[in-house]
Amino acid sequence: MKVTINDIAKQAGVAKSTVSRYLNGGRISQKTSEKIKRIIEEHNYEPNSFARSLKSRKTGFVGVVAPALDSFVTSKILIRMDEELRTRGYTTLISNTSHSIEREIESLQNLQRQKVDGMILFATELTPAHFELIESLTVPLLIIGQETDQTHCIVFDDFQAGYKMGECIASAGHKKISYIGVDETDVAVGQRRRKGIETACRDNGAEDIQFFRSGFDFDSAMLAAEKSLEHSQASAIICATDTIALGAMRVIREKGYRIPEDISVSGFGGYTVSKMIHPSLVTVEFDYQETGYLAASTIVKLMQSEEVDQLQRPHFKIREGESVKGKK
Amino acid sequence: MKVTINDIAKQAGVAKSTVSRYLNGGRISQKTSEKIKRIIEEHNYEPNSFARSLKSRKTGFVGVVAPALDSFVTSKILIRMDEELRTRGYTTLISNTSHSIEREIESLQNLQRQKVDGMILFATELTPAHFELIESLTVPLLIIGQETDQTHCIVFDDFQAGYKMGECIASAGHKKISYIGVDETDVAVGQRRRKGIETACRDNGAEDIQFFRSGFDFDSAMLAAEKSLEHSQASAIICATDTIALGAMRVIREKGYRIPEDISVSGFGGYTVSKMIHPSLVTVEFDYQETGYLAASTIVKLMQSEEVDQLQRPHFKIREGESVKGKK
Repeated sequence: MKVTINDIAKQAGVAKSTVSRYLNGGRISQKTSEKIKRIIEEHNYEPNSFARSLKSRKTGFVGVVAPALDSFVTSKILIRMDEELRTRGYTTLISNTSHSIEREIESLQNLQRQKVDGMILFATELTPAHFELIESLTVPLLIIGQETDQTHCIVFDDFQAGYKMGECIASAGHKKISYIGVDETDVAVGQRRRKGIETACRDNGAEDIQFFRSGFDFDSAMLAAEKSLEHSQASAIICATDTIALGAMRVIREKGYRIPEDISVSGFGGYTVSKMIHPSLVTVEFDYQETGYLAASTIVKLMQSEEVDQLQRPHFKIREGESVKGKK
Repeated sequence: MKVTINDIAKQAGVAKSTVSRYLNGGRISQKTSEKIKRIIEEHNYEPNSFARSLKSRKTGFVGVVAPALDSFVTSKILIRMDEELRTRGYTTLISNTSHSIEREIESLQNLQRQKVDGMILFATELTPAHFELIESLTVPLLIIGQETDQTHCIVFDDFQAGYKMGECIASAGHKKISYIGVDETDVAVGQRRRKGIETACRDNGAEDIQFFRSGFDFDSAMLAAEKSLEHSQASAIICATDTIALGAMRVIREKGYRIPEDISVSGFGGYTVSKMIHPSLVTVEFDYQETGYLAASTIVKLMQSEEVDQLQRPHFKIREGESVKGKK
């Protein structure tokens, strides 16, 4: 016997449209949701194919484009997002672009051709090609990590996060502080985060803040840290990421200094490994769980033509550790 | 005369779909496979162009199912694989399953429905549900990380890798050795890797090899390391993964011992972070680049009905580091 959506609705005592909404991951009370779920399971029905038959052009797929799958931050957000999309009846299809803007555009086009219902882009940079593409999309697009008024975005508050960390270090009594940061072409990290740090250091009595340029990789972080040790008398080194902080820690030790007795170190990112090492790293931990959840619920709302704020900012906190010592 | 798939099927006495499955690298009994192969050869047909002409529904998509995107090993393999598939004109679609076997099966089914041309599964465990699914697939499936004769597999040689590490530690003169490993339900790591280590330790003069059970996570690794320090006098601790080694290193330091002067430590995995820390970790580094390349080239061959070895083993090496000291 073929069970129809009408049968399910009748048995659950709800409208057909409610079942349909359930199957498409729409908003529905928990109680009703559980009831429908039970009935569907009793009849051993597979919700996906079921859902598809209901909405002819719906595939139940959400496409995700990411520049790097070996990024701690991206993978943490992705996993929570995927989890949430799944509970709402969607399947995530992930494309990796190895930091190529060209591939990013190509992947978004491919996904649209695959008839996904919505797309999420982990952006590192937004180019004219992106804006042209956004213009031509027929499904909603959510961007994570960069800001634009062309579409919906989820972005960390890098100025505030930088400010908190600068405050944490300077208010501990450090007067001479090095900041190992990245290039300004990265608006979020290279500009806003740096600005936040430098502002807070000045606001909290630091006298000397020196900037040293690094890439995002360990090796260039080690070079920048060597320069910092050579050219500054800083008692604290703030690093733009946890990876950079690991590079700095290695160089500091190799030069025979102790952390944090001689030099304090801090990072940004809150990587898992930063708590595993000794001394554990003081770092900014963005709420990746919240970000993943927000991303999933936002794209679902957009796919259902509900209203969502254009710009959303997940929370962050300073994660305590052993790598910073007060100078007071 | 043009031979059609119908002619082949008739001559072989099988269904047209069986021939199609043969041509697409799907699962098929060896006997039938040989029969179809013979008939195709008799007619002097080139399976490749043949196969291609049959598959008017080629999408150029390869589906990948992975248990965890925040795994160092998985992400390294994935990125290289994706790179290689792209240069060969394929697009990778990745599904994350958060270590759920149920989702794994569901994702493979979903991908097949999406009409991918081939699928790659990062497997942690193979259940009857997997074998049932493999039976029903109409596109080739490549499994990474587990062995089965039901389909093509790429698996690390965990016995040999374990042996090399055991040899490295025992031949450095360590007589009392702890091994912090994982449960036997994991065939590769829990059984083969352990067996290799213990065999090599005995072969190389170790007198006392004690096993301590851990999970794959940092916290349970710390607990296991505490037990090891309490119950053994080991001068070296071999750990089943780099994460477990990080847990052990933390505990060893907290108890006031020095690494490697008092206790040597080694890992498996060759994570990037294991070279960043101080002392850098001696570890087994599997060739993830090779694995990714092999996975891509193998699935492409299978999709084109070319022959590939059923089982392939990527290389590995011991990565030097500062965490092990000789006792001679």
